[in-house]
Amino acid sequence: MRDAYHEELDGLTDKLVEMTRLVRSAISRATTALLDPDLALAENVISRDDEVNALFAEVESTIFDLMARQQPVAIDLRTMITALRMGTDLERMGDLAVHVAKVARLRHPDSAIPLEMRSTILEMGQIAENIVTKAGSCVATRDVESALELPKDDDAMDRLHSRLFRLLLAKDWQHGVEPAIDITLIGRYYERYADHAVRVAQDVVYLVTGTRPT
Amino acid sequence: MRDAYHEELDGLTDKLVEMTRLVRSAISRATTALLDPDLALAENVISRDDEVNALFAEVESTIFDLMARQQPVAIDLRTMITALRMGTDLERMGDLAVHVAKVARLRHPDSAIPLEMRSTILEMGQIAENIVTKAGSCVATRDVESALELPKDDDAMDRLHSRLFRLLLAKDWQHGVEPAIDITLIGRYYERYADHAVRVAQDVVYLVTGTRPT
Repeated sequence: MRDAYHEELDGLTDKLVEMTRLVRSAISRATTALLDPDLALAENVISRDDEVNALFAEVESTIFDLMARQQPVAIDLRTMITALRMGTDLERMGDLAVHVAKVARLRHPDSAIPLEMRSTILEMGQIAENIVTKAGSCVATRDVESALELPKDDDAMDRLHSRLFRLLLAKDWQHGVEPAIDITLIGRYYERYADHAVRVAQDVVYLVTGTRPT
Repeated sequence: MRDAYHEELDGLTDKLVEMTRLVRSAISRATTALLDPDLALAENVISRDDEVNALFAEVESTIFDLMARQQPVAIDLRTMITALRMGTDLERMGDLAVHVAKVARLRHPDSAIPLEMRSTILEMGQIAENIVTKAGSCVATRDVESALELPKDDDAMDRLHSRLFRLLLAKDWQHGVEPAIDITLIGRYYERYADHAVRVAQDVVYLVTGTRPT
């Protein structure tokens, strides 16, 4: 049987997995809000970011409390340190989904995304969802091999990000500067979202092995 | 007299202050590389980011080592936790300076910055330098009151960032899409740089008071 202390540590993992679920849902809804375009959905992403922040605040206060009471060593200490870092990354991923939703809101009832870019943005949204799902599963299972796979998904995101720039800089671009700015920022938000998911997975590797993947 | 353990803790602070100095120099050189434009200086910023990363690696390994050996409590534990977070933010600030330098390198021998935007970018660079100087001084002195002043500098950065967008979206913008993309990204890099400096200062507040500023 687990003692109260280790139950609190397990509870941290549950909360982090729940954070991955919330920020996955946020980027999924933000992508839809952008493409449809759907103002109510955009507002929903923006207002519900509080849930992610509240969960992170719980993670933080549990860790600071455990650290003050328990003088943790070795693996327990690594669990707390990585939980804090993972929480920081996941909280940021929530913010990035909000940034996407805010562009959708700003341009509504128009869509910020011209027709010829919709499929690329849709793919970026799908990769963002996949990568955070995988990160969540790594956090839950502590499976190092799966965690080491995430950079592949990140490479796919980077390729789509490059494709966005190629489309923006094509000779037949006819939408002017404002949509170009929107798309530059949106592309950056998705790309950073994936980077943070990779960092979460890297922290799983550190948690289990005690060394950081290069 | 301080024991070896507390000397190691003090050493962490010295390394973090040195990181603020390095990333200040990096954003200063990156701004010059962008405006002059100066290819050698841009390359210099890019290659010397290794120094920041190496220093952060030292901070990390010292902390993990101290944590494993010492079972730190209360203020010592807070010192380590915040050092880890500050190091993460400072390392990212180094990356953001590199991103600015890479735009300078990409557009050389042209400047990525049209004439009418040079003064705004110069100001953003100056605010970035000021804010990281202040953050470094907060880390060194643990002065909570100064740390709580940083959001003001961040507000000034946000105002310049908004001015960039106004210039990009003005009717008389005549530089086309590519410079608009460059400037959108550059603006974002400076703005994020300042955000991370504010986080460093917030961690000083947490370190000293045990509570996070809202």
